[in-house]
Amino acid sequence: MAQKPSIPKGTRDFGPIETARRNYIFSTIRSVFELFGFSPIETPSIENLSTLMGKYGEEGDKLLFKILNSGEWLREIENEQFTAADSARLTSKVSEKGLRYDLTVPFARFVVQHRNELTLPFKRYQIQPVWRADRPQKGRYREFYQCDADIVGSDSLTNEVELLQMIDEVFARLNIRIAIKLNNRKVLAGIAEIIGEPDRLTDITVAIDKIDKIGIDNVKAELEERGLSKEAVEKIVPVLSITGTAAERLQQLKTVLAESATGLLGVAELEQVLEESASLDMRADVELDVSLARGLNYYTGTIIEVKALDTQIGSISGGGRYDNLTGVFGMPGLSGVGISFGADRIYDVLTTLNLFPDTVTSAPTLMFANFGKSEALAAMAMMKQMRAAGIACEIYPDTAKMKKQMAYADTRGIPFVAMVGENEAAQGKMTLKNMTTGEQTLLSPAEALEIIRK
Amino acid sequence: MAQKPSIPKGTRDFGPIETARRNYIFSTIRSVFELFGFSPIETPSIENLSTLMGKYGEEGDKLLFKILNSGEWLREIENEQFTAADSARLTSKVSEKGLRYDLTVPFARFVVQHRNELTLPFKRYQIQPVWRADRPQKGRYREFYQCDADIVGSDSLTNEVELLQMIDEVFARLNIRIAIKLNNRKVLAGIAEIIGEPDRLTDITVAIDKIDKIGIDNVKAELEERGLSKEAVEKIVPVLSITGTAAERLQQLKTVLAESATGLLGVAELEQVLEESASLDMRADVELDVSLARGLNYYTGTIIEVKALDTQIGSISGGGRYDNLTGVFGMPGLSGVGISFGADRIYDVLTTLNLFPDTVTSAPTLMFANFGKSEALAAMAMMKQMRAAGIACEIYPDTAKMKKQMAYADTRGIPFVAMVGENEAAQGKMTLKNMTTGEQTLLSPAEALEIIRK
Repeated sequence: MAQKPSIPKGTRDFGPIETARRNYIFSTIRSVFELFGFSPIETPSIENLSTLMGKYGEEGDKLLFKILNSGEWLREIENEQFTAADSARLTSKVSEKGLRYDLTVPFARFVVQHRNELTLPFKRYQIQPVWRADRPQKGRYREFYQCDADIVGSDSLTNEVELLQMIDEVFARLNIRIAIKLNNRKVLAGIAEIIGEPDRLTDITVAIDKIDKIGIDNVKAELEERGLSKEAVEKIVPVLSITGTAAERLQQLKTVLAESATGLLGVAELEQVLEESASLDMRADVELDVSLARGLNYYTGTIIEVKALDTQIGSISGGGRYDNLTGVFGMPGLSGVGISFGADRIYDVLTTLNLFPDTVTSAPTLMFANFGKSEALAAMAMMKQMRAAGIACEIYPDTAKMKKQMAYADTRGIPFVAMVGENEAAQGKMTLKNMTTGEQTLLSPAEALEIIRK
Repeated sequence: MAQKPSIPKGTRDFGPIETARRNYIFSTIRSVFELFGFSPIETPSIENLSTLMGKYGEEGDKLLFKILNSGEWLREIENEQFTAADSARLTSKVSEKGLRYDLTVPFARFVVQHRNELTLPFKRYQIQPVWRADRPQKGRYREFYQCDADIVGSDSLTNEVELLQMIDEVFARLNIRIAIKLNNRKVLAGIAEIIGEPDRLTDITVAIDKIDKIGIDNVKAELEERGLSKEAVEKIVPVLSITGTAAERLQQLKTVLAESATGLLGVAELEQVLEESASLDMRADVELDVSLARGLNYYTGTIIEVKALDTQIGSISGGGRYDNLTGVFGMPGLSGVGISFGADRIYDVLTTLNLFPDTVTSAPTLMFANFGKSEALAAMAMMKQMRAAGIACEIYPDTAKMKKQMAYADTRGIPFVAMVGENEAAQGKMTLKNMTTGEQTLLSPAEALEIIRK
């Protein structure tokens, strides 16, 4: 009995149209990365678990897909007594490798491993899938692509300005209207300082990160739950409530953070990035958002988040500056800044707003109908000419009824069908049918080419 | 103590230049696939082991990378007694999923799973990595890309003729001179029939597949070792030794195989494919090679192999027709034909013959040197113009010594450097340096654009 085939939960098959649309997103992002001078690298899907473990927190370790050692994988646990509860403890004895969880840790590993071959600053982009053994749910998959661009080895804010322009260009090409939100971890650290809770930066950022979702009152409640004093919490509120133009808000921040050197440095960095970006006439608004925190704890300076303006879908791109990404692999003090584009979210935005261009299709432009062996050969000779001119085309492979052939072209969304029957073949011509209008015309290949190209 | 990072054996990091070159190969193949009307699909890296196991022979099952179940993976073997030798038996109790081993089985699974959404004939291409837990050795990796194009749901030989032309186009674009070898499994089956050993087709094909490597005498010896009678073996020899033009060899085959209906059908198929291909003026020679067998047992008709003419590197592409790929998933009788391009082998050929175009580079075309904050801003405004015109460029992010900035541009292979100092900024101009000739000229952005585009 043949098995009914299926795929693991949380994974996806992509059919022709989805793949063509995904490739449109990837190639748009790739083109812009290259336009901005980023070079591509690729790292293996499989990394040593020693590279991956401990880099994503305890929860992350659990979400790593682990690969069973080859051959006699039981060797190191044979004759041991254990129960299911010992699974976590014994994993390292049966598995040495795991699937890539993100592109950041492999990139850090790459930089350290190849440090002698690289010229700093090093600008790399990487577009590859990652895997997480997360509970599958709507919009969350176990295999998905990340599209990352990072610069390491330079702490100049020029990099931030370049990244903002790059974001602007990617979404302009995709025709998605966006707002870019900007903050700086040093400002958040300054706030923690001035409220007298410098060691509680993580608690503070985790809580205020939710302000958009739960509102300021709930953020206050959560901060108190996390053990901050009422006084400290009350001191945060005005900072999160500053208003006015960017310049006005920067000014207010300077006043509030006057006692914190770190905080003032953060404000100065924000000021420079905002000013320089403004002078470069970006299409998107770049907004200072003091409540922007982003979950990842390795950011140390600028943090960036991008939201689509015309839908409720959340963040579609984000990034920031980190000062010690490679330290864990023995190369401390290397500053970097990067940005990641979420291909799945962007796909959803383009679908929701109906923004995929009509030219993004999985079908060829032209199909030659098949009227029999010798007619097909004549058609194939013409097809050669069309292809040499860059027109994607194919011939229906079988001499089926014309109705069936037309239905095939129609279902695939092929815009033109060429009919080369006995008469046409004798004249070296084709009858070209426009599948949208139904119009049919007898044409030479050169004439057909002209019409198709319009 | 920080760990010294490394990657698992048999896997590879690809740096900027390698990745750019690999992308050149992939995008060339992809463009041609689309030119011939193939639609892209993607399947998950992770498949259920029930989909993969038993499809690649016993050896293949061992070479599958298996993923440890999440959470309490020991549950089904807790409190069992076993030794290392029980590993194979217990694998299915701790692992339900594995990494894709090739693109063919996932494609068959895809076709059956989505049969109600697909229009037949279905032409798909797929360019994705596969994984095999092979012993790593020179030129054999544990993770590598396959580039496959298949048509299922049509038994017309027009598909074969199209595939041959597609091969011709791919290698013409890559500038690799090739020979395409053609045979038909039915001819091999006919040979097995007329020598009185119809059930020994596999033994016969496995042996004669080696004729190029070991010569006809050793093939004869191997066939006898495999239990074929001396008489049977002697009857094969003249078939493998037929000579002359394609037409002459086809004629001789017809005589030799006169008693085998299957064999004659194979000859007729070969004849049609060769004739039609010849009428379409291909660049590559398409040669009938009766000794071509190809290892895979699922081929049932045409078999194709491509060799590069100017190096000793073996097969760089191959494929054929199979009549029952989807049967194992409950969908019998679907004929298909396909071709696979070996990206790693193609990479090696292009490297050996020095055929990567100079335009395939990982670096931008232009770097703006950094003379300080306000000059950098002026440069960034010009950069915007250059990028709008499609010129990939970047600014050196730090105000470092000019020698260091130039060395960076040089190492990355950036062909032009633009210097925008105080004077240039005041005039809205740049001093453009050609890094090959050393020539420097003061130019407006529009003038610079013209020079760079040459």
